[in-house]
Amino acid sequence: MESGQPNSAASDHNLDGDAQAHPWMELIEPISTDKTQNSSVPPVEGVAGGGTSYGWVDGGLQASSLGNGAIDPTKIHSADLLHVWSMPSTANVSQQEAPRPLEHVNLLAARNERESFQIALRPKVSWATSGIAGSVQVQCTDLCSSAGDRLVVGQSVTLRRVVPMLGVPDALVPIDPLNSQINLLPGETSAIWVSLNVPCGQQPGLYEGEIFLSAVRAEAESRGESLTKSERYQLYKELRNCIDITETRDYSSSEEMVQRLTSASTTLRRMLALPSFQDCQENNGLGDMMDEDIMNNVAVRLKLSLTVWDFTLPLTPSLPAVFGISETVIEDRFCLEHGTKGWYDALDHHFRWLLQYRISPFFCRWGDSMRILAYTCPWPADHPKAKEYYSDPRLAAYAVPYAPILSSTDAAKNSLRREVEILKSEAHWSKSYFYLWDEPLNMEQYDVICSISNELRSYASDVRILTTYYCGPSGSELAPSTFEAFVKVPNVLRPHTQIFCTSEWVLGTREDLVKDIVAELRPDLGEEWWTYVCMGPSDPQPNWHLGMRGTQHRAVMWRVWKEGGTGFLYWGTNCYEKAMIPSAEICFRRGLPPGDGVLFYPGEVFSSSHEPVASTRLERILSGMQDIEYLKLYSSRYGREEGLALLEKTGVYLGPDRYALDHGPIDVMRGEVYRTCRS
Amino acid sequence: MESGQPNSAASDHNLDGDAQAHPWMELIEPISTDKTQNSSVPPVEGVAGGGTSYGWVDGGLQASSLGNGAIDPTKIHSADLLHVWSMPSTANVSQQEAPRPLEHVNLLAARNERESFQIALRPKVSWATSGIAGSVQVQCTDLCSSAGDRLVVGQSVTLRRVVPMLGVPDALVPIDPLNSQINLLPGETSAIWVSLNVPCGQQPGLYEGEIFLSAVRAEAESRGESLTKSERYQLYKELRNCIDITETRDYSSSEEMVQRLTSASTTLRRMLALPSFQDCQENNGLGDMMDEDIMNNVAVRLKLSLTVWDFTLPLTPSLPAVFGISETVIEDRFCLEHGTKGWYDALDHHFRWLLQYRISPFFCRWGDSMRILAYTCPWPADHPKAKEYYSDPRLAAYAVPYAPILSSTDAAKNSLRREVEILKSEAHWSKSYFYLWDEPLNMEQYDVICSISNELRSYASDVRILTTYYCGPSGSELAPSTFEAFVKVPNVLRPHTQIFCTSEWVLGTREDLVKDIVAELRPDLGEEWWTYVCMGPSDPQPNWHLGMRGTQHRAVMWRVWKEGGTGFLYWGTNCYEKAMIPSAEICFRRGLPPGDGVLFYPGEVFSSSHEPVASTRLERILSGMQDIEYLKLYSSRYGREEGLALLEKTGVYLGPDRYALDHGPIDVMRGEVYRTCRS
Repeated sequence: MESGQPNSAASDHNLDGDAQAHPWMELIEPISTDKTQNSSVPPVEGVAGGGTSYGWVDGGLQASSLGNGAIDPTKIHSADLLHVWSMPSTANVSQQEAPRPLEHVNLLAARNERESFQIALRPKVSWATSGIAGSVQVQCTDLCSSAGDRLVVGQSVTLRRVVPMLGVPDALVPIDPLNSQINLLPGETSAIWVSLNVPCGQQPGLYEGEIFLSAVRAEAESRGESLTKSERYQLYKELRNCIDITETRDYSSSEEMVQRLTSASTTLRRMLALPSFQDCQENNGLGDMMDEDIMNNVAVRLKLSLTVWDFTLPLTPSLPAVFGISETVIEDRFCLEHGTKGWYDALDHHFRWLLQYRISPFFCRWGDSMRILAYTCPWPADHPKAKEYYSDPRLAAYAVPYAPILSSTDAAKNSLRREVEILKSEAHWSKSYFYLWDEPLNMEQYDVICSISNELRSYASDVRILTTYYCGPSGSELAPSTFEAFVKVPNVLRPHTQIFCTSEWVLGTREDLVKDIVAELRPDLGEEWWTYVCMGPSDPQPNWHLGMRGTQHRAVMWRVWKEGGTGFLYWGTNCYEKAMIPSAEICFRRGLPPGDGVLFYPGEVFSSSHEPVASTRLERILSGMQDIEYLKLYSSRYGREEGLALLEKTGVYLGPDRYALDHGPIDVMRGEVYRTCRS
Repeated sequence: MESGQPNSAASDHNLDGDAQAHPWMELIEPISTDKTQNSSVPPVEGVAGGGTSYGWVDGGLQASSLGNGAIDPTKIHSADLLHVWSMPSTANVSQQEAPRPLEHVNLLAARNERESFQIALRPKVSWATSGIAGSVQVQCTDLCSSAGDRLVVGQSVTLRRVVPMLGVPDALVPIDPLNSQINLLPGETSAIWVSLNVPCGQQPGLYEGEIFLSAVRAEAESRGESLTKSERYQLYKELRNCIDITETRDYSSSEEMVQRLTSASTTLRRMLALPSFQDCQENNGLGDMMDEDIMNNVAVRLKLSLTVWDFTLPLTPSLPAVFGISETVIEDRFCLEHGTKGWYDALDHHFRWLLQYRISPFFCRWGDSMRILAYTCPWPADHPKAKEYYSDPRLAAYAVPYAPILSSTDAAKNSLRREVEILKSEAHWSKSYFYLWDEPLNMEQYDVICSISNELRSYASDVRILTTYYCGPSGSELAPSTFEAFVKVPNVLRPHTQIFCTSEWVLGTREDLVKDIVAELRPDLGEEWWTYVCMGPSDPQPNWHLGMRGTQHRAVMWRVWKEGGTGFLYWGTNCYEKAMIPSAEICFRRGLPPGDGVLFYPGEVFSSSHEPVASTRLERILSGMQDIEYLKLYSSRYGREEGLALLEKTGVYLGPDRYALDHGPIDVMRGEVYRTCRS
């Protein structure tokens, strides 16, 4: 039988005699699939049972195109080795996320806005040989406009790996721009978080760029090419030996010198023969291929367009969002003594880092019961740093420390009075508030607040005291029902609280109850309604717990804007469990839903960096804060009713249990604001 | 204020003038926790809300003991850096598995038995600087008895990494014994699967050994110590240069030779000055610390005892368990032409590899409808390999190919007749069976089986035909109810089927129905009842789907033994989705529960190895097969009723929805067999 006929393989085998074929072997050829031609033909094992749906998914890449043996990623187009696709910032890209087609990414951003998306990667094959599926090099160009303006990689364009916490994609670990390789694992989808930060002064226009994703040899394998420790030591000994040969000065004869030169030369040749130098000889040290060639020839290219429009998000957030940072946690984890230079540096670092999220931080420490010492600036009012902190336009509100909350001495009271006297004459005083007690529960605790209020108002008549609560005080017969008692709290705390900060948990899905809360307030006396989330509300309402949908995280701020509160409080951003070493594992606290009170992580857990690592949830809070500015812009043009209608008709947010589950409506809403508000 | 007093830090800070303290700062000192003394005192933030349970979990390790900056794992006891604890082989150790105390591991095994357990690892802190938490070196001693007998690492003791598939720990990837480092990720638990394989000839006794787990520098970091590519190229050029200097033969003068020697020596000294050789000079190439010192000083030591007892599992499994291997999948993934040498090698490799699991493999290819070509040996009966295959004592049953199933030509029939004539005279003929059709559903399909049976019985009167089914044939009025129609199948297939192989799914949790099935069989005619699982039964009944409990996987064989079937069939061990490249991602087939039909993976997906990678489920199948031998031994001494009572009273298996959820009962049962049956 001639080779080239359909069943020649079996026959050839018969002929070469190496092994004898089953007599029936050629009989089954008719049903064996022809691997080169049947790509559109239904599979052999196709209908049910044992063969269910075999062959319906065909990767396309065939070993024949890769050659036999190890895969060299520099020789094969990366699209054959990995799936690459984009995902919106509200997607939780799990390790099991299924691939989608790769599409051009189109984004919209105002100036002073951050817009993010994700790149998902999943190996089609394994090209590494050491436990991972393979390494991928990520390279990003600057984004350029036709006018020549740029958004520069590393500054305005940043890349972070999305790392799971408790199995949920959450931590955003910066990718070293000098070594932007990430490892893919077999059967796992990985994600890269790409953020575009548009500076205030950026020219509007269309910015375009590309991200190149190239399968590369894993570091551990390139290491194989370099010298092992034993080779290095062998080399070291040979070099020393060679120096001994060549360095002696008292040569007895020319013969000896010739002998020494010959001996040196032999030793040197032996060194050059080390396997490690093999590729130096082969390609003259230029490496396998230049980076640029790799990008052009084998990288997957993700095209990226960003429309920067002629709107600048206000430097000062329209909605003050005050977020707590536990000083106790910082002291413990970073082993800092209270009040030392390292302690001040750490607090300063955290303050500045959180400001970029349109958040107004306050440091806090809990005392007895739910007494809380909250302060935005660790320095006293007469310190130059205080002015720098309180005057920062990105800070929408600041907490003034009420030190006597922890120890009511004369000294404490005197220093407080001095503090208030300095601050109340400053222009930024209108941003100040006192936060004295977290969720007071009974009349005794209310009395403490009233007594402090009396003291504070004797120092400055216009102090603002913020009180958080989710129920009326026990021990008083304020109202017959629980909700009524809650609603009547302003009657008890007036004039000792100006910022009535209530838990969204109280409302549940009944946003109609908002009017009952607001009806009890006296805006004419400067009273405001703020809200907060913490353990509650829980799913399906918006909150920032780990494992909730991305839109659910972002919806917290949509809810705030729709309900009309004028400020927001969150109790903690770094309130993970105690540890006494910076790189200690992050544990969430017992009794709290995972992620509650933890919006960023210590960088030391993930790398040698000391920079905090943001969570995807923190990024979505920023997005929500930015959405508020879009909605405010739109409302300033067309009225609040139209703003509410926009939120509703685009399907972004209709109520605490009815909001966008996927990203689409968000882009529609933002696009509509852009379309109708651009100048 | 003197330093040394509790509030000295704040005061010192006042004095050093570098930053001015808040006036209230010293006031809060009384509530600041004293980090060195309060380990037993309830935490400051202790009761509710923002401070919920802060400080109740204290890692113990403090930064002060680690020094500032990067952690050097060679200087710190690994117990301070990672949690190490053992888990039984039936545990699915997830990435979120919580640490437990480390305890001495005590195991029991017969000769010719494999017993496994797992070592779980979780970082307490991060000591690497490059995205992972840290690397851990795993070193295992031989297990030795006091008589000097050994179980040798690498042969009788093997280590494998547990790698998740679809997020479920399943693939067991061998750890390179020469480079036994595994990487831990922040906040993730990893597991190592340790197997002890006791050879048939092993002396009974108590074997003891240790496994050392040491936090080490990550490879990527030690790589920093070795030569970079550019250094290597520089070295290469210098060496070549030096050779040019020393190699010229025609020296014009002694002066020139001196000059050349001097020049060479200078070049050599320049090479030695490269940073990469720094540590060679410092420690004379001996490395930072000897391996042994590391093990003794800083490694976590896991003590391991294995009692090998005086019972040898029979080489031939008491229960034939026949498992399918898809030849189609092998051909596609490894790009092998049917019948070539590579094809034979691949099938041979798979056959031998599966035999170690007390499994009797058959290769299979599906035809039209559910026609199946099943054969254990790819070589014809007169080939020397056939004798080797069929006579292997580890093979409990083998499928004879009925080639005409796919193409009913005279040639096919003739070769079949020849095949049977050779085989029927062999001693191993009693192990043979024909498997012709997978789950025939109607009378037409039954007729095909009957007609083939007539043909086969004309060649050999004692052929055994195996037929799988889960219902009676449609198109016949066999019985009024579905279950009765199923029970009456032997009446239709007699004498055309000898092995009535029914789905466990039919029984559901009604194991009392077994007697109805068995009552219809004629053991006097050689009829046997076998069972199988595939898509069904589903949770909570025993099966091998991914995501089921480990005891649920192992319970499949307990069920078989309790129900009294005399054999077992599983349709596929490698039936993942089609791919045309060995290292292509493993996808489970659409429409099947994940893991169904896939008990091992191609090694190429995980490393450069061509060795198949077992699943934890396959290991648990082996354990179940071994449990059957224990139960059989016990029953041979005390009767089957006592064996059933043992299974029940230890809580191992009471029924398809009542069996051990955790490992404890398994050890109790095995221990009881050991106690009562050792000689």
